[in-house]
Amino acid sequence: MKKIINSPNNVVGEMLEGFVSAHCRYIEKVPDANGVTRREKAKGKVALVIGGGSGHEPLFIGFVGQGLADASVAGNIFASPNPEAIYNVTNQLDTSGGVIFLYGNYAGDNMNFDMAEEMLGDDGVRTAHIRVCDDCASAPPERAEERRGIAGDLFMIKVVGAACEAGCDFDEVMRIGEKALSNLRTVGLATSPGSIPGNPKPMFELGEDEIEFGMGIHGEPGIRRDKFRPADELAETMYSLISKDMALKKGDQAAVLINGLGSTTMLEMSIVYRKLAELLEEDGIDVYDGDIGNYSTSQEMGGFSISILRLDGELKKYYSAPCISPAYTREDRRNG
Amino acid sequence: MKKIINSPNNVVGEMLEGFVSAHCRYIEKVPDANGVTRREKAKGKVALVIGGGSGHEPLFIGFVGQGLADASVAGNIFASPNPEAIYNVTNQLDTSGGVIFLYGNYAGDNMNFDMAEEMLGDDGVRTAHIRVCDDCASAPPERAEERRGIAGDLFMIKVVGAACEAGCDFDEVMRIGEKALSNLRTVGLATSPGSIPGNPKPMFELGEDEIEFGMGIHGEPGIRRDKFRPADELAETMYSLISKDMALKKGDQAAVLINGLGSTTMLEMSIVYRKLAELLEEDGIDVYDGDIGNYSTSQEMGGFSISILRLDGELKKYYSAPCISPAYTREDRRNG
Repeated sequence: MKKIINSPNNVVGEMLEGFVSAHCRYIEKVPDANGVTRREKAKGKVALVIGGGSGHEPLFIGFVGQGLADASVAGNIFASPNPEAIYNVTNQLDTSGGVIFLYGNYAGDNMNFDMAEEMLGDDGVRTAHIRVCDDCASAPPERAEERRGIAGDLFMIKVVGAACEAGCDFDEVMRIGEKALSNLRTVGLATSPGSIPGNPKPMFELGEDEIEFGMGIHGEPGIRRDKFRPADELAETMYSLISKDMALKKGDQAAVLINGLGSTTMLEMSIVYRKLAELLEEDGIDVYDGDIGNYSTSQEMGGFSISILRLDGELKKYYSAPCISPAYTREDRRNG
Repeated sequence: MKKIINSPNNVVGEMLEGFVSAHCRYIEKVPDANGVTRREKAKGKVALVIGGGSGHEPLFIGFVGQGLADASVAGNIFASPNPEAIYNVTNQLDTSGGVIFLYGNYAGDNMNFDMAEEMLGDDGVRTAHIRVCDDCASAPPERAEERRGIAGDLFMIKVVGAACEAGCDFDEVMRIGEKALSNLRTVGLATSPGSIPGNPKPMFELGEDEIEFGMGIHGEPGIRRDKFRPADELAETMYSLISKDMALKKGDQAAVLINGLGSTTMLEMSIVYRKLAELLEEDGIDVYDGDIGNYSTSQEMGGFSISILRLDGELKKYYSAPCISPAYTREDRRNG
């Protein structure tokens, strides 16, 4: 695998420099830490800090900006940022309204963000966390809190970021975030592996006619190895799992995302979306908004995920609020 | 190669259905033609119609919307749309202010769009065209009009779309478009091939330590086969070619884009951007705006391109105007 890098030892630092340079209208690099903040820092609101391992770009770094996160902390490839980095990046912000950490539910992230919360707590800063656990292929419903966070991160950052921006108080933001999380499900599949810079070996191996159904964004095993099948059949299997898990019912309103893992084309994902829209219509689900894009990737992995966020009036208000960031800019649709 | 499709014979039709379904807030499908228009059609302005072969998504379909194109016509994979489709899609629009066609400079597109212009001319509609020829690796400067159109399409759609939206008259839009084109250069390279749905063979072959320097977005040969080299060296070679070709000089202001061809990660492109920013700074070029994304792809091809658009006050005004579309939404930066 040809990775367009300089040295495998410095990919995250150089990536951050380049990304921030391109998007310096929106974000700036934190000195001496692998993190970024908004260029114009917000004051007097709950601060939202996101982060996790690198290698999933544009997640997380691309979602720092107005109406989204205040800062992002980047670990090494597929590795959690350390507590000191989280602490230092957070301290660039106005923490007087409290800090909410939003990240995927992984053991390393949980431990390191918890330690940063302790350090901030010692300083008298109020903190809490939301661990995104949207991947319904990674654990059964009765152990939903063990599920991994995958592409649903985008919806969570959008809704929680908008609630912070709107001036909701700490408890209110947490309530809205927890409501969004309980109404969010994702399931993904992989068709081909990605690879880590500096390591010529692919992250896993898959046969020419195989897919990994339910695979995680670090190449974690899914529910099963499956035969490769036509797009419509894959969409049906994935939708059926999500729909059952979240008990979607006629009259529900939802935002829907097809997220590419790296090398799957928008052409393919659009073909999947076509079937998904058909299935949602058959079930009487009203699609408030749809999207197709590479938001949470796993290097050049082939495959995609489907995320569904059920919206009530409140969640819809925050979902449709405007946002401006390097990887996600949306117009105000609250009156549309 | 596992393509997530149903039947190779219907990929474009199904892709359009799915893409339009996801983005029905912005665009709608033209009945009986592989094309889309804005959902809320503009009236009383010059109409901008874009298009070309499919397989480059989100180009062109993703750039139909406010401040960008009025309609897009999609051919089969890597094949020009036919004249009837172009004519029919265009006739969905208010053509009273004239129609400008904007597309990449390829023989098939040139011929078919020309024929559509003739058909519209017979109806008394004023038309003209801008053939994007930004790929400075595809022909020497003295034959610049033979150059291919690649990722620079995005900048052209942005600037020309904004001029149309601002109510500029037909001649004025053409003047602005031609000025933008003469200040735009792109050069790309490929590290690995893409493949066409239904065809298991890759589009070309490259050795493990080879790149194709200057490769086109349909796998057309570039300037040379080259050894794979570190990101900074690739950035230097590419920038040097562009800079010389467009005679960049100290004090120039520019918008810069790194466009991914399909499977190259944002991490890699950010590392390239880092070096590019350094080179621009050394040369005293003021970067007004930078961007990194997959806008003009070639299925799952590995590689990327660098585009530079030199801006004067007028071009900057249109570049920084707001736009809203499925794949490209930007805030108003005219006062920033």
